[in-house]
Amino acid sequence: MTDVGGIGAEQLRSYIERIERLEEEKAAMTADIREVYAEAKGNGFDVKIMRQVVRLRKLDSADREEQEELLDLYKRALGLAV
Amino acid sequence: MTDVGGIGAEQLRSYIERIERLEEEKAAMTADIREVYAEAKGNGFDVKIMRQVVRLRKLDSADREEQEELLDLYKRALGLAV
Repeated sequence: MTDVGGIGAEQLRSYIERIERLEEEKAAMTADIREVYAEAKGNGFDVKIMRQVVRLRKLDSADREEQEELLDLYKRALGLAV
Repeated sequence: MTDVGGIGAEQLRSYIERIERLEEEKAAMTADIREVYAEAKGNGFDVKIMRQVVRLRKLDSADREEQEELLDLYKRALGLAV
């Protein structure tokens, strides 16, 4: 094994390259997500609201209800209530 | 097509589900990356320095040199130079 300054250079290179490959795949996912949103936008959907929906669907119904109550409370506190 | 309040509900659901699948795959990549770093750490490598190396390898050598010169300049300006 190539040893540079007491470090296993090949082992390090292997880790770094694995990370880079995974980062690339992750970046591709990010691009794909952006594309789906763009396609939805092209079909008349609002991207910001879709992002909110995605976030809400991650919560269970109790958490969703709690967040909605808190948001409502904060809105009323700041005079944003409809 | 199911129409809810003038919106194509099934089309919206399809977009949201595509996004959710991609978000899941992206989260899996993030977890995989974290695992590689953890494995490297277990073998004695410093994760923070590895992250710096990953960032540096994204730059071409001119950008890398420029960043290193700037960092050196800022360090000297703040008395951090070795």
